[in-house]
This record gives sequence, structure tokens and C-alpha cells, in this order.
Amino acid sequence: MYLGDEAWPDLETYFDSESLALVPLGSTEQHGPHLPEATDHLIAEAFAREVADRTGYLCTPTVNIGVSGHHRQFHGTMWVEPPAFRSYMESLTRNLTAHGIDRVIYVNAHGGNVPHLREVGARLRQDEVAYAIEWMWDESIPDLVDELFEQNGPHGGPKETSMIQFLEPTLVHDDRLQDARDEGVPSVDDAETVKHGSRTFYDAADNTDNGVLGDQTDASAQKGRDLFEAASDQLVALCEWLDAQPFEDLLPRDHV
Amino acid sequence: MYLGDEAWPDLETYFDSESLALVPLGSTEQHGPHLPEATDHLIAEAFAREVADRTGYLCTPTVNIGVSGHHRQFHGTMWVEPPAFRSYMESLTRNLTAHGIDRVIYVNAHGGNVPHLREVGARLRQDEVAYAIEWMWDESIPDLVDELFEQNGPHGGPKETSMIQFLEPTLVHDDRLQDARDEGVPSVDDAETVKHGSRTFYDAADNTDNGVLGDQTDASAQKGRDLFEAASDQLVALCEWLDAQPFEDLLPRDHV
Amino acid sequence: MYLGDEAWPDLETYFDSESLALVPLGSTEQHGPHLPEATDHLIAEAFAREVADRTGYLCTPTVNIGVSGHHRQFHGTMWVEPPAFRSYMESLTRNLTAHGIDRVIYVNAHGGNVPHLREVGARLRQDEVAYAIEWMWDESIPDLVDELFEQNGPHGGPKETSMIQFLEPTLVHDDRLQDARDEGVPSVDDAETVKHGSRTFYDAADNTDNGVLGDQTDASAQKGRDLFEAASDQLVALCEWLDAQPFEDLLPRDHV
Amino acid sequence: MYLGDEAWPDLETYFDSESLALVPLGSTEQHGPHLPEATDHLIAEAFAREVADRTGYLCTPTVNIGVSGHHRQFHGTMWVEPPAFRSYMESLTRNLTAHGIDRVIYVNAHGGNVPHLREVGARLRQDEVAYAIEWMWDESIPDLVDELFEQNGPHGGPKETSMIQFLEPTLVHDDRLQDARDEGVPSVDDAETVKHGSRTFYDAADNTDNGVLGDQTDASAQKGRDLFEAASDQLVALCEWLDAQPFEDLLPRDHV
Amino acid sequence: MYLGDEAWPDLETYFDSESLALVPLGSTEQHGPHLPEATDHLIAEAFAREVADRTGYLCTPTVNIGVSGHHRQFHGTMWVEPPAFRSYMESLTRNLTAHGIDRVIYVNAHGGNVPHLREVGARLRQDEVAYAIEWMWDESIPDLVDELFEQNGPHGGPKETSMIQFLEPTLVHDDRLQDARDEGVPSVDDAETVKHGSRTFYDAADNTDNGVLGDQTDASAQKGRDLFEAASDQLVALCEWLDAQPFEDLLPRDHV
Amino acid sequence: MYLGDEAWPDLETYFDSESLALVPLGSTEQHGPHLPEATDHLIAEAFAREVADRTGYLCTPTVNIGVSGHHRQFHGTMWVEPPAFRSYMESLTRNLTAHGIDRVIYVNAHGGNVPHLREVGARLRQDEVAYAIEWMWDESIPDLVDELFEQNGPHGGPKETSMIQFLEPTLVHDDRLQDARDEGVPSVDDAETVKHGSRTFYDAADNTDNGVLGDQTDASAQKGRDLFEAASDQLVALCEWLDAQPFEDLLPRDHV
Repeated sequence: MYLGDEAWPDLETYFDSESLALVPLGSTEQHGPHLPEATDHLIAEAFAREVADRTGYLCTPTVNIGVSGHHRQFHGTMWVEPPAFRSYMESLTRNLTAHGIDRVIYVNAHGGNVPHLREVGARLRQDEVAYAIEWMWDESIPDLVDELFEQNGPHGGPKETSMIQFLEPTLVHDDRLQDARDEGVPSVDDAETVKHGSRTFYDAADNTDNGVLGDQTDASAQKGRDLFEAASDQLVALCEWLDAQPFEDLLPRDHV
Repeated sequence: MYLGDEAWPDLETYFDSESLALVPLGSTEQHGPHLPEATDHLIAEAFAREVADRTGYLCTPTVNIGVSGHHRQFHGTMWVEPPAFRSYMESLTRNLTAHGIDRVIYVNAHGGNVPHLREVGARLRQDEVAYAIEWMWDESIPDLVDELFEQNGPHGGPKETSMIQFLEPTLVHDDRLQDARDEGVPSVDDAETVKHGSRTFYDAADNTDNGVLGDQTDASAQKGRDLFEAASDQLVALCEWLDAQPFEDLLPRDHV
Repeated sequence: MYLGDEAWPDLETYFDSESLALVPLGSTEQHGPHLPEATDHLIAEAFAREVADRTGYLCTPTVNIGVSGHHRQFHGTMWVEPPAFRSYMESLTRNLTAHGIDRVIYVNAHGGNVPHLREVGARLRQDEVAYAIEWMWDESIPDLVDELFEQNGPHGGPKETSMIQFLEPTLVHDDRLQDARDEGVPSVDDAETVKHGSRTFYDAADNTDNGVLGDQTDASAQKGRDLFEAASDQLVALCEWLDAQPFEDLLPRDHV
Repeated sequence: MYLGDEAWPDLETYFDSESLALVPLGSTEQHGPHLPEATDHLIAEAFAREVADRTGYLCTPTVNIGVSGHHRQFHGTMWVEPPAFRSYMESLTRNLTAHGIDRVIYVNAHGGNVPHLREVGARLRQDEVAYAIEWMWDESIPDLVDELFEQNGPHGGPKETSMIQFLEPTLVHDDRLQDARDEGVPSVDDAETVKHGSRTFYDAADNTDNGVLGDQTDASAQKGRDLFEAASDQLVALCEWLDAQPFEDLLPRDHV
Repeated sequence: MYLGDEAWPDLETYFDSESLALVPLGSTEQHGPHLPEATDHLIAEAFAREVADRTGYLCTPTVNIGVSGHHRQFHGTMWVEPPAFRSYMESLTRNLTAHGIDRVIYVNAHGGNVPHLREVGARLRQDEVAYAIEWMWDESIPDLVDELFEQNGPHGGPKETSMIQFLEPTLVHDDRLQDARDEGVPSVDDAETVKHGSRTFYDAADNTDNGVLGDQTDASAQKGRDLFEAASDQLVALCEWLDAQPFEDLLPRDHV
Repeated sequence: MYLGDEAWPDLETYFDSESLALVPLGSTEQHGPHLPEATDHLIAEAFAREVADRTGYLCTPTVNIGVSGHHRQFHGTMWVEPPAFRSYMESLTRNLTAHGIDRVIYVNAHGGNVPHLREVGARLRQDEVAYAIEWMWDESIPDLVDELFEQNGPHGGPKETSMIQFLEPTLVHDDRLQDARDEGVPSVDDAETVKHGSRTFYDAADNTDNGVLGDQTDASAQKGRDLFEAASDQLVALCEWLDAQPFEDLLPRDHV
């Protein structure tokens, strides 16, 4: 069920019987010469909508702009500073509870949002307002990701490329995949992003000239479909697990 | 040009030659028994995309959730508190300037966002970071709105109903228009929302039982089309005016 | 009853039997070549004191400096930024409840404070701490204002001029009224403050060279007296209405 | 010169030639059974106005409500929390610099404001925005205070009583002076406010049942006049000293 | 008992039977040419550990860096801004209550922290979260301090010098004591730090060229020992007094 | 060179010739039944002091209390909320630059601090105030850690146990190592901390009953020594690398 499409009286039944919401969120940021800036929020929205359709759980509209300051050197990257992002997400989530929601899955497709969603989620749980957790599609199917790609790259690599080739094929510049690889950082290990144990970089531009890592030529729409289906299954399972928990069991444990 | 669809190298020409961005934003909130909760952000996005297509100016992804706490009593309304909204919008706008944007039109379709966008815009201008102004479609064509509707209502009335009938007809419950009117507040003047000069209400629910005001039966998709075209013309004209100003002329005037 | 004049034991009876307070607040900002910078807070204080005298409700000392950054280009304008103003007013109001106050009328004479007082009032009500509403004298008597003046002007016009001529005649430069009109913006409609539906100005100086709008030559102390009496009656009526409400009825309505 | 009385064009000469402002501020809080709640801000305003009249320096309107949470147990005390007070005062002072003010004397008559004004002043100076210092009348004439009173008391004692007897005699309950003394804490030393080196109290009510300390029967209007004149002389001298300093000399010293 | 040395199961008995914690905190800041920058936190830690050893009360690890911006001109001074310090201390103290602590003594050896600890303590008490008070060793034994030194100086004087000579003799440059005195401000009264009642300085460097005041040649390790023992006795007594109070008696008094 | 031990004149040479500081920081939190709560800050301080001794770079006093809310269920854990921690660390670091420091290594031994130090570091770099990076000893020698331990555990495991056995042997309860393992979570993989790709835990107590993971019986002081020496070498190398960079090279790269 997609909240944005519904008139308010038609949501009453849902809130009477369910208390789970899927909140898709991603980023609007450079994804190399071959992928659209919308990549992350398109992926997040696709998963959240798909799983809402399959399960009947409520999906909200998407938060399109997140914490992407580390891509600021590339044209078009949009972002908000971390405190603004956390405040926005915390407020949005707290207010969802006005309707009876007490458990939220942030269907997130942008790594830069993760620590902030974790911080917000910890606070909401500690306050016993809601139990909100963050889910990244690729972390739900690590074995399949490893199996499909030699060098998947953490950003703009074949993993995300395959996904957009499947979801929004017209937005991929297939003719630039080779350049994406050759002018970027095909192998993350070679990037030497860590010096003596310290991450000495802060921005993507510190590591890669074209904004991406991994071997994009290894991508395909079929792989994207496989990934999408496998990860959707995981998200369905997560929804079912979450729905089955008594709220008390989701709250912090007592002091020893 | 829609930022979300583009890969970063393809935005370089735009940023080299232009410095204007259209940022659509609305709300996700109850719009009565007949309209979808997405109403405001659908309208905002439609205008911003249309005008971006017609003029070539850059349109960003949409901010879907705004300041709607005054609709909290109705199922599904989503919102963030004003300080969170202002921080998010100010941060987002400041960061757009990293690419050379120095003038922004908030294509806004939700009245509750207005004072906050004005506050953010005033700060950005005072800091000489950017000149950002807020635009509401209905305020750009007040005469046409008055001409088309007897009782247009400030929220969920025939004005917004017509617009969604035109833009997203499948999302309107046409069979509920009469109920929307009869169980709401057909005439705003009758609502007695002000007592002895003081607005004694804070929430929509203080004034209306079903969340809407105005006579929804007066709406039609054709009226929606007329409104959309007339207001789009206004937004095009605003873009052209704004683009033509030297940046210095947009900054605060000197002390007398 | 004026709080500032009383010793604490003499307030006990009031707090035992009443729970309403009048908080006057205005601004210290330019009001053209003819009016004093204190204009707004003088007016606010005069209304609050008058009505407190007539009704016996409690009037607090005045908040003299508000949100007037949009008058910054003119000598002597004092202001605080909106977040500071909101925090100050919210804290002041919350703390009044320590003595049993649960309903507050902000007797406000400065338009620039309005959205901020509304934001504070909404928060206090939502938290069920207090019900605080904002009142502007001229909005309580719109018909009389329209009847008395052709061009009343939103700032430093004949409306405010008449009021100060009545309240503090020695502070008005009667010999400058014609200049005030001729070097300012006599007719607001002519000022073209809105372009294609967007308010493209942020500061008073964007619209008017001498800081004022309206036809000041239309002012008189007698008109000021009429306005003062008529609006005082309205404020008395508002106090009585407010006092008569059970506190529960002033709180937010339940979720549908 | 009193800013509130002036029209903006009449302030131009001052700002062209001077850069000092006197900002009176006090509190609205209980001052025992005999003194009005306005005591502190009346005193502050009287000094600032007097010295502005004598010297020609600019005096602004008064900030009437300050940091008085430690008097919360007594009817009528108004206060804002320290962060709100600091933000308000810092914003107000920063904005005064728009007109050329670069040195400010906070003519303060409430001890509870002191650390906060010091914090604000330190920040403004460090930022090289303005040099703002805090002045308390009684700290400018410690010898005279000691000479006139055996037990002056830090709050609501004969020192403040004398001052209000002189400035606003109708607001003093002379018939309650003996009770004020006998039901309060005549001798501060006896109050045992410190235990083993630690101030174990936070509120006035922790130390005194009627809110005051000192021997109020020792007060007189004549003593008030003497204090007022002596301290006014000190404030005049401070203004002159401050005016004579080059701004650079008021800024922080360089790193060694 | 020192919290840092214990494994969590070994703290259970303490928290079951006691609710008091000693939190040492000082500063890292210049203390003249003869004393180490750690002076204040070394002293605070020594007192807190000593008294914890003697009484069995819990001592936490030390907060080493406080509010010392007024020493910024001297090499090596470390500090945080007041809002950061207050947030850190308030959060730290609130969280201690998770284990049952409801009364805290800030064993503080830096005057610059005092108003901030008072502000935090007032808030915690008002919220009925904890009763936290601040203790300075020298304020617990004013007579002994006066007896031992002619000119003890508020910063880096013989009082602190003696203490470090006793606690950490190898960190004192005994050969620089005479220079410390002669190039600093031997007599505080001579420093003219106040002009006409106003403290016109903000930084130590405004008053003293080498950062210190007082006559350091008057210091000795034996005096340090005497001071340490006398003040430790006071802190023991304070702990015992505090432990003996019912928690209700430590909370704010009721409104009159 | 240890800042805390020095008098300010003795730091002048360092600041004249060097611009690097080592800031040790850890946590005070439960580390199982066998390790002291000080574990993390003891380790951090040991590394920072050792490397400062070996290289001559400046080491500051330690920040002992960090972000450890996820250990709140266990007696004695101290923590500050993330916003307070970030403000404290950002302020502390900004202020270090007053003396010429422009590069900082946070010698951090607590994983919970990492995202917050990264956020602070990114902001400081973006503002071109300082280049501050975070270093964790175990991340500098991943191969050695893997080689020495089968199940090192992320918290309170044999890695940290060995380190304290080497650094502070009297603080380790060697007789509890077997219990630590058997009542905790010997193998992290078995802990099922992630469900369908989502980390569904927030607190350590969600995963482990005694607060620790890994096989503590695999620890030894000799392994601790080996780890300490190897990681110290890495930190020395990091200092040397960092010192060798021109400051411009440490700043953000230009926009493409």
C-alpha cells in the first residue's frame, strides 16, 4: 500500500491492524559518467514499493536527498549536512507514530545515510517511541553480490549499474561503462584509501577521479533482476519478522 | 532538465552557463476523503518538471514531506517539525551553490511551508549565499482562481481537486466530491476561524471535520488544465525574470 | 492588573482564581521619518494595559524587541533572529505556567512576529503546556480600518500614525507626514511587491525608500482614538471568550 | 538620546559620530513582600536613561525579562532559560552593529544575568563583532553601599529598597519593611548557603522563605538618591572611558 | 572506589547501596611559566581519588578539558566553548543516573567551569533527574588559604603552586617562581581589572603578561600538603552530608 | 612531548616548528567481567604517549568518556549522547588551532566514537580549519590480529584483553577469562546480529549477556606486547606521513 496514493479515510483500516511502515530513502548524487544522480533513491523506492505491493505493508513517499557531502566535487550532487538530515528523519519518524506506527524500516540505498539512521533509530528506541531499523539491499545478499561480480565497488560499480539497467534502463549510458571503469578505480583494494590503519580520505574525489569504483563492464540488466528479486525476498522476510515481534521485545533490554 | 536523470558529466554545461534551479516541494498530508495524500507534492513536481522542460532550467528531485503538523489528526499525514524543515531546506540550498547555483525557486504547493521557506530565503540572501524565493501556483493566478470557483477553499477544495483530476485522475475519488463538500466546510467565511481578530485555531481539525474546505463539486479536469497552463506560464515568466537579474541586484540593499 | 507593579504576595489571589495572561510585544524598528522606533511596542503595551485595567486580567511587562531584520537598512532598527525570538518567547511562556497560567494572549503589534508566535503557540498547545494565541489590533477591526483610510499601508501608514498621534502625540513629527507619503509608497498595490505570484522582496527597503507605505496625511489623533477604543473592545471580548473556555477545549482535538 | 523616541532619520547623526549604546536590562521577578516584580528593570532603565540624558549616548529600550528561574517558587516571577536569554541578547547585540555600534554597555540590574552577559560579551569580542560589557550599579560603588547599610542583602534588601523608594515610591510597601526583614534572612552570613565550600542551594527559596535577604528597615529614599547619583557618575565615567578607546584596543590581545 | 579500575560486575554492590558519585574535572590551560598545563585536572583528580579512597564513594575518570578560552593567548591552552562543555557535562551526568546515581559532586578545580556547572546542576535538579553540585577545594578552606598566603592570586598563584609542589613536585619549575611573580601580577588589587564597576577584561592576557597572579615565592610543598588535607576533610564532610539527605530534600522546594 | 606536563613557555618551540597533535580518546564502559571500565581510554592513552615519546610529537590529555550508550545496561558505563560528543570534540579541535596546530590524529580506542570523529573531521576539513583523522590501533594491524586470535571479538575479546594484560596487568581478572568466554558470545558469527541484511540490534546487551564477544582465554600479555609494538610502529608511520604533507594537500580537492 502506497501512502501517497491514498485518501485519509482509506488508511484507517491499515493503521487499525498494522503498525509497520517502509520509508524509502536514498540520495541525489553523482554516480559516475554512466549512471543518473537519482540512482540511490530510485533503487530505494523500487524496493520499498515492490515489497509494499507484495506484502500489503505501508510504503511512504521517498526522501530523495540525504548525506552526500562527500560527493560535492561532482556536478549536481545534492546534500544536506548530517545534523539537518538526522533532525529531518527523526522528526518524520516520530510523527509517523501519531497514526499508530511503532516500527519502521528505512529502505535505504545510500551508505552515507547509514550512521545517521542508526543514530536516529537508537534515540527513538531508547525513548520508546518507535523501533526503526535501516536496511540496505546489498547487505542482505552479500553472497550473491560476491558471486555475480569480481569487483563490485562500493559506489557506482557494477552492482548499482546492474540495478539501474534493470529498473530504469534508459537512464544508463551503456556506452560509457568501459570509461567508467578505466577512468575510475576498478579495484578498491588498489585505491589505498587507508594509511596505517587510518582512513585518510573524506571525499569520493580523494579516491577516484570520475567518482566511481569497481568494474562497470561486468553489469547487466539480468544481474540487476536477480539482485532485485533476491533482495526483495530478504526485505519481505524482514517485514514479516518485524511484524511478528511484540513491541516490548523491540525495546531496549533492562539494566542487568 | 531534470537533475535526477543526468549523469554528472552531462550537467557541466548547464552549470557553466546557468545558475538557476527549480526545487519542487510539497507535503504528504490528508487532503480530504477524495484526494490523495500526495496531492501537494504531485502538483509541485508537475509544475517544476513542466517548466524545466519548457525552459531548459534545471529541476531537482522533490522534497515530499514538509510542515504539516496541523493535519496530524487525519490518518497518514506525514510531517517534520518546523526547525527540522528549515534546517533541511537551508542545508540543501546552501549546498546547491557548490555547483554555481545562486538563485533558486522553491516550487512549493503547500501553504504550511511558506513562512519557513521565507525565513530560510531571507537568511540565505542576507548571507549573500543565494537568492531563493518561494512560488505558489495559485498565488500566481489569483484572478483565474476566483473566476473558476465560487468557493475554492484553501485546502482540498475545488482548486486542488481540479489540479489532481488533470494531473493524476485515477487518484481522485470522484464519487466522494459531494460528501467532501457536505461534511467539510463549503464556505470558508462561515468557518469562523478568527475570533475578535485572533486566529484561535492551530489545526485543520479545529475548523473542519473531514479536513477540507470549499466546494469540491465545482472541480473538473478541464479547469485543472486551465489552471496548470496559466500558472506554468507565470512560472516560466518568473524564471526568465530571475535569470535576467544580475546577482548583485538580488542581494540586500545597502544601509541607507 | 500589571504584574510589574505588584509584590509577589499580592499576586496570589489572581493566580488562585485566574489563569489568563496578556503579554504585550512589539518591535523597535524604523517607522518612517515621522514615527518613533518604539511605535509597535508602545501600541502593544497601550492595548494590553488598557484591557488589563478594564478587565482585571493580568498584564506582564512588554517584550520590546522582536523580529525586524527586514528593516535593517534603516538607522536604529533593533532585532533578534527568528530562532532567538522563538526560544525567548517559548521559554517565557512555558515558565509563566509555573504560577498556574494556562492561556496567554500575545498582544502583538508587529506583523513580523506573527509566524513565530504562531509556531511557538502551536508547540505549546501540542505539548499541552499552555494555549497561547496571537492578537493584532488592526486585524480585529478590519472594517473600521478600511472605512477610515483609503490607503492604510501595512507599515508606518496612517493606521499606525493615527494610533501614535493618539497615544504619544509628542513623538509624531506631524510636519513630515506629507514627505512620509511622497517619498514612500502611498499605494501598496503600486509597489509591485509580487512578481508572477512570488514575493521577490525580503526587506522593507526593497519596496520603499523611506521605510513606509500608505498615505500618512490621512491620519489623525481622533481616528487613533476610534481605532484604540474599537480594538480594545475586541480584545476585551477575546479575553472573556478565552477565560470562559475549559482548558480541555483549548487543547488539540483527538485523532479522528 | 533614547532610541525608542526617535524617527530613523534623526538617528543618522548619532551613528555617524558615535558607536556606543547603552542597553538596559533587568528582570521581572519577586523582590519580597515590599517591592514590585519590576524592581530590577526599573532600576536598569532609570540608570541607562539618566546617563543617556546626561551624556548624549544612545539608550535602547529595555529587556525586561531575564534569567530568574531561581525565583520560580514565588508568584509572578517571569524568566527565560539561560540558552534562550543568551541567544536573544547575542542576536540583539550583533544586530546593533548594523548601524555602526561597536561597543555596548549592558546596564544590568539583575545578578542572575551576569554570567550569561559575560558569555555573550566574550563571544562577540572574540568574533571581533563588538565589545560589550556588563555593568551593575552596586558593584560600581561598593564602598558607599557598605557605608550606608549594615546588612544590604544581595536580593530585595535595603539597597534595592532604597532605590525603588527613590525612583518609584508608590510601588514600595513601606508598611511591610519590618516583615520583609523578620520573615526573610536579615543577615546573609547566617543563611549558611554554603556547605563545606559548595553552594548547595540553587533557588532563592532554598535560603529564604519570603524571597529576600538583608535588613529592609534600613532603607530610605534619600539613600536611594545618594546611590543613584553616585552610581550614575560611575556609569558616565565608564561611558567616557569606553568611548575614548580605539576599537582595536578593545579587541582580544594577540597570542603571545 | 575508582570506577575506571573496576569490571562491571564488581560495581553492582556499590550501585545497590549507594547513589553518590564524585566526578573530577579541571582544565588543561596555561598556569604561568612555572606550573604544568595539567594543573587543574591534576588537583581535581587528586582530591576526588583521595576522598573516594577514604570514604568508599565512587570516583569516575576525570574530565580533563574545560572552559578555558580566556587563556587562549598562551601556548598549549586547550578548551571547549561553553555550550559544548555544558552539553557534555549534562549528558554525562544524566547518563550516570542509569545506574542509580542521583547525587553528584563535581570535584572541580577550575573557576572557569563554575557558572556552567551551576547551570547544568540547576537544570538537572529542576528536571528531578539528579542533584549535582560543584565543589572547589579552595572555597572550602578560605580561612586557611588566607592564613597561608599574603597574595594567593586566583590563577597560578602560590595556592596552586603549593598544591602541585605537593602532588607532582617534578612538574613545578621551582627556579621560575620569582620570575612568575615579577613578570605577572603579584597583587590582584593592583591589577585594576574592574573599571567603574564593570569587569572590562575577558581574557587572562588582559590582566597579566605571563598568565598568572599572586606571589608564587610564597608557595611550598608543606603548605600544599596542609591545604590538601584540610580541603580533603571538607570534601569528606560534604560527601557525608550529601549521602545523608533523602533525595526528596534535595529537590526544588514547592511553589509558595 | 606531553602537553599536560609542560609550562606554556616550554611549548613555544614545538608550536613554532610543528603543527601536529595526537589526541587520545576512548571510553569508560563495561568490558565484560574480566576487564576494567577504563580499558579503551587506557589503551588510547598508552599508544598516544608511547608514540609522542618516540617521535617528539605533541600528545594532549585524554578524553576519557565517549559515545557508549550502547553499553548502558551494564553497571558503570559512562557516556555522552552523540551530539554532545561531537560538539565537545569539534570545539576542542578547533581551539587547538589557536596555537598553530593544523593536523590532528585522534588516537581512538573505541569503535563507538568512530562515525562521530569522522563527521567532526569532515567538517573541520571542509571549513579548512584543520585536517583531523581517526586512528584505531587494531585497524592498523589487521593481519597480525587475525594471526594471533581465532575469535578476537569486537568488544572485550582477547585482543583488548591481551592489551590490558600487557599495559595494566593488575586490572585484569585472569580468573574470569573462561567465564567471560562461556557466558558471552565466543564466536561473533554465531551471534546472528544481522537479520536479512539489517542490523536489528542497537545495544551490546541485545547480543551478549555479559557484555563481551570473542574467546578471552586466547589472550596473553605477550600477545599484548606484540600488538602494542606493531601498532605503535604504524602510528609512528602515520605521524610521519601526516607531518610530511603540505597543508594544501590535506584540504578538500577542487570541484571537477
